[in-house]
Amino acid sequence: MTHLQGIAASSGIAIAKAYRLEAPDLSYTKNSIEEPDREIKRLHDALEISKSELEKIKEHTRNSLGDEHAEIFSAHLLVLSDPELIQPMEDKIKSENVNAEAALDETANMFIDMFKNMDNEYMKERAADIQDVTKRVLAHLLEAEFPDPALINEQVVIVAEDLTPSDTAQLNKEFVQGFTTDIGGRTSHSAIMARSLEIPAVVGTKDITKKADKDVMIIVDGLDGDVIIDPSDEQIASYKEKQAQFEEKKKEWAKLKDEATVTEDGHHVELAANIGTPEDVDGVLDNGGEGIGLYRTEFLYMGKNQLPTEEEQFDAYSSVLKQMGDKPVVVRTLDIGGDKELDYLDLPDEMNPFLGYRAIRLCLERDDIFRTQLRALLRAGVYGNLKIMFPMIATLDEFRQAKAILMEEKDNLKSEGVDVAENFEVGMMVEIPATAVIARQFAKEVDFFSIGTNDLIQYTMAADRMNERVSYLYQPYNPAILNLVSNVIDAAHAEGKWAGMCGEMAGDEIAIPILLSLGLDEFSMSATSILPARTQLLGLSQEEMKGYKDELLSMGTADEVVAFVKEKAGLA
Amino acid sequence: MTHLQGIAASSGIAIAKAYRLEAPDLSYTKNSIEEPDREIKRLHDALEISKSELEKIKEHTRNSLGDEHAEIFSAHLLVLSDPELIQPMEDKIKSENVNAEAALDETANMFIDMFKNMDNEYMKERAADIQDVTKRVLAHLLEAEFPDPALINEQVVIVAEDLTPSDTAQLNKEFVQGFTTDIGGRTSHSAIMARSLEIPAVVGTKDITKKADKDVMIIVDGLDGDVIIDPSDEQIASYKEKQAQFEEKKKEWAKLKDEATVTEDGHHVELAANIGTPEDVDGVLDNGGEGIGLYRTEFLYMGKNQLPTEEEQFDAYSSVLKQMGDKPVVVRTLDIGGDKELDYLDLPDEMNPFLGYRAIRLCLERDDIFRTQLRALLRAGVYGNLKIMFPMIATLDEFRQAKAILMEEKDNLKSEGVDVAENFEVGMMVEIPATAVIARQFAKEVDFFSIGTNDLIQYTMAADRMNERVSYLYQPYNPAILNLVSNVIDAAHAEGKWAGMCGEMAGDEIAIPILLSLGLDEFSMSATSILPARTQLLGLSQEEMKGYKDELLSMGTADEVVAFVKEKAGLA
Repeated sequence: MTHLQGIAASSGIAIAKAYRLEAPDLSYTKNSIEEPDREIKRLHDALEISKSELEKIKEHTRNSLGDEHAEIFSAHLLVLSDPELIQPMEDKIKSENVNAEAALDETANMFIDMFKNMDNEYMKERAADIQDVTKRVLAHLLEAEFPDPALINEQVVIVAEDLTPSDTAQLNKEFVQGFTTDIGGRTSHSAIMARSLEIPAVVGTKDITKKADKDVMIIVDGLDGDVIIDPSDEQIASYKEKQAQFEEKKKEWAKLKDEATVTEDGHHVELAANIGTPEDVDGVLDNGGEGIGLYRTEFLYMGKNQLPTEEEQFDAYSSVLKQMGDKPVVVRTLDIGGDKELDYLDLPDEMNPFLGYRAIRLCLERDDIFRTQLRALLRAGVYGNLKIMFPMIATLDEFRQAKAILMEEKDNLKSEGVDVAENFEVGMMVEIPATAVIARQFAKEVDFFSIGTNDLIQYTMAADRMNERVSYLYQPYNPAILNLVSNVIDAAHAEGKWAGMCGEMAGDEIAIPILLSLGLDEFSMSATSILPARTQLLGLSQEEMKGYKDELLSMGTADEVVAFVKEKAGLA
Repeated sequence: MTHLQGIAASSGIAIAKAYRLEAPDLSYTKNSIEEPDREIKRLHDALEISKSELEKIKEHTRNSLGDEHAEIFSAHLLVLSDPELIQPMEDKIKSENVNAEAALDETANMFIDMFKNMDNEYMKERAADIQDVTKRVLAHLLEAEFPDPALINEQVVIVAEDLTPSDTAQLNKEFVQGFTTDIGGRTSHSAIMARSLEIPAVVGTKDITKKADKDVMIIVDGLDGDVIIDPSDEQIASYKEKQAQFEEKKKEWAKLKDEATVTEDGHHVELAANIGTPEDVDGVLDNGGEGIGLYRTEFLYMGKNQLPTEEEQFDAYSSVLKQMGDKPVVVRTLDIGGDKELDYLDLPDEMNPFLGYRAIRLCLERDDIFRTQLRALLRAGVYGNLKIMFPMIATLDEFRQAKAILMEEKDNLKSEGVDVAENFEVGMMVEIPATAVIARQFAKEVDFFSIGTNDLIQYTMAADRMNERVSYLYQPYNPAILNLVSNVIDAAHAEGKWAGMCGEMAGDEIAIPILLSLGLDEFSMSATSILPARTQLLGLSQEEMKGYKDELLSMGTADEVVAFVKEKAGLA
């Protein structure tokens, strides 16, 4: 038995054998061969198996994540059927008498180099596609195991250094009981997706891949962040008990699905969800979400070779708005740049991308991109309760500029005779310290604030949330963060506006009593956190929590805050 | 005549012909040669000229910047005399019948590759030295012009894309009248050094190198940020007039050298200087500095192959303290990492170094490095008025840890029977938003604050100050910055502590009235800014400025602040 402590990233308990998700060894020897026909057949066999795998993955992705995510695999399939790529491989086998591995790899590399060096983003994408599929075919030639999370067909716990978003997207909940990784934190992409898929996960264990062999039994405790390798029978029994209790709890939570979120003393707050695509709305409604507090629109722009059209965007936005009926939907305009790149935009390399050219900064300069999005939003707004939110606002000038462009497009649409939303709110993310500090000045001009704690914390503490060397400084409960949050809420209320929060902090059981004490109006979180949060809030008194506000704000350290809240809010 | 607008980086007017500082074209053809002896002679001639140039540069650097900076050139000279490097070059000429250029370049590259691949920082440094000097020798073989700012012997204005710190260090004020660059800002290294050398400079002109040919006449107006290429006679006359007026002003300023800095209504503030080496102290005293508000200790750690010893550090710190007598000297402990790297420390590559592992974060982990510095400081403190300051503090825990280590080393030294400072203050930089927000909590435990605006602004606005795409967001006068500064000063005063500022903002004529209104106690700036600042402060009333405080703090934008201050403080 080996115990590892990691970061609880998605709640629940998983008990199953380890499935190691790792890149296979694809080294091969270039050989002279005697029978070219035999090599050509080997090549075609490998191509065929790869195609049928990709078909399955594509199908699976379409079912779990929708058409948009499945498109990438269509592109991969095209590559495998492209005679302009396959014919030269056959020619090479015949004319140079080399084995299929060498013919495949050298031909593919020639095309990859050629495409990569073209000054054309579309061709660069093609190079990436060829690279991806060549690896799969080469693995089949070498009879190496090529891990396909989508094709797992027995109960497993996935063990990996890290999971890419596309790995995570392929996971089939029916078989994948949980996952655990060496690196990552609660706010890494894979953690966020795990919560959205409701798969228990523990990340940041540092060396699970060193400790867990293939097929060994593993317990992943996504409630407390524990991972147990090769557990004893007693441990398995005890965790099965814990698992059953958790399932019981979930059933209790589910009863609150259609309840309002009202504290013990009758104060109502709104529990909303963060989503990325129209397909996520089902999960929000199933989990009793009272609205969408953050609709991240980046997915529309990612995984393709060009900007989404106004129509594509209109379809996505109006689908979300229609599904949500009269419940509020806060749509954040494009937040690209920083760690989120778009190949086809050719953004500059920066020394500190988190402090660079991104989000509203980019949209105000590339207002062609911005205007297309705003037009789609204004048109979609007719179908529901739309609120538009600008990300990464640092100055009042930026907010004014962004809003002016929005109003201009509204006028343009109207003069074109197009139906547009009339009663929509216009707000901003508070994720840059400057805006939290002078929230009073902003509150006069915005309709609402939504506090983005993931970024606000990293800028306020000057600590990159992706950098493990300074992760001890990423402190949601630091009194400086609480003071800024409090200032934003007070500023909003002073002007009769509302303040929400759409960072990870909003769904955290220690943060919830604090945020209640500070007067937060709307809590937006992963859909799966809504019912536990509602359960917790029903048992809290806002009046009591407000009594602790001044004491909380004058504390010196995050540890003091945590200890105090645990005691006062009755947490373990 | 062409006019360019740049950023006024160092005051004064320069009028002289352009000297283009740019890397020469060092491409060569590898030839078969007939007379190896002639090639060997060419090689040795180029080596000799290079040596004599390096001797001159070394001498010049020693005189202007001290022994420490000159050391790098001793290393370069050693390379040029190393038979293990030169002999293989001669052998190559003789055995392969190639020209001196090819023999030099290929032999040098062989050594460079060999040294670079060794897992030894000292050898990696040697590789860099060989690369540097080989370029110089190759330039002589090719009769290409190799720019040596130290060897300029006529009046010029330097035109360059950017200047490295070592370029700037080599400038001879007697001949270099000013400089102007394509890139950079007021806080870039070359700008800071220009002010310290008192050379007029305009940076960030975007395309001066495209517009200014060699030897064309140039006017650099470091007061207003203008650069005029090929000026008319009238323009030259008018700028000569402006130059004379500025010289006159400087004479007026000089009269205030020994005056205290007392406002019209009798309020005293301290004007101190920022320095980097003991050699800078002369300039501080010549400019009437009342103290040193920031002694950056990084130079001791840079440009060498190993950490400085306790003795080397003791010598530097005690030299500064002795020269300053009983005037306060605030020494900042090591602030390395971020954009300042030390090869021999092998710091990790980071995606966002400004939000990464640096300064106190590194010192608390590598406390061997930290303790050596603290011991040297404690010992040196016996000789003057020492104040120790920790950089990049984000949490109270970090400050407590750093102070505990300091006190431990004090006890250790005392138990070793060593004389140590007894009455020294221990303070911190306020440069991370978190500390400015909850300054009240910190004020209880520190002896003083020094606000580091360069970093505080970039974190508060989430805008990398080195990144030109977001430079419009680097706003010292943004009301958010003013509110944070005000909060820090109020927090210090509430606990009977003092608050200073050691960022570029402290010496800025628009910021000075604001900082006076907010109650700042100590202003630390480039030595050359002290007398103009004193002149300005003598003409201001603190009482009047304080009356504007609330209005300033509730403004919405930096532009409003600037317009208001210009009017109220009588600025153009």
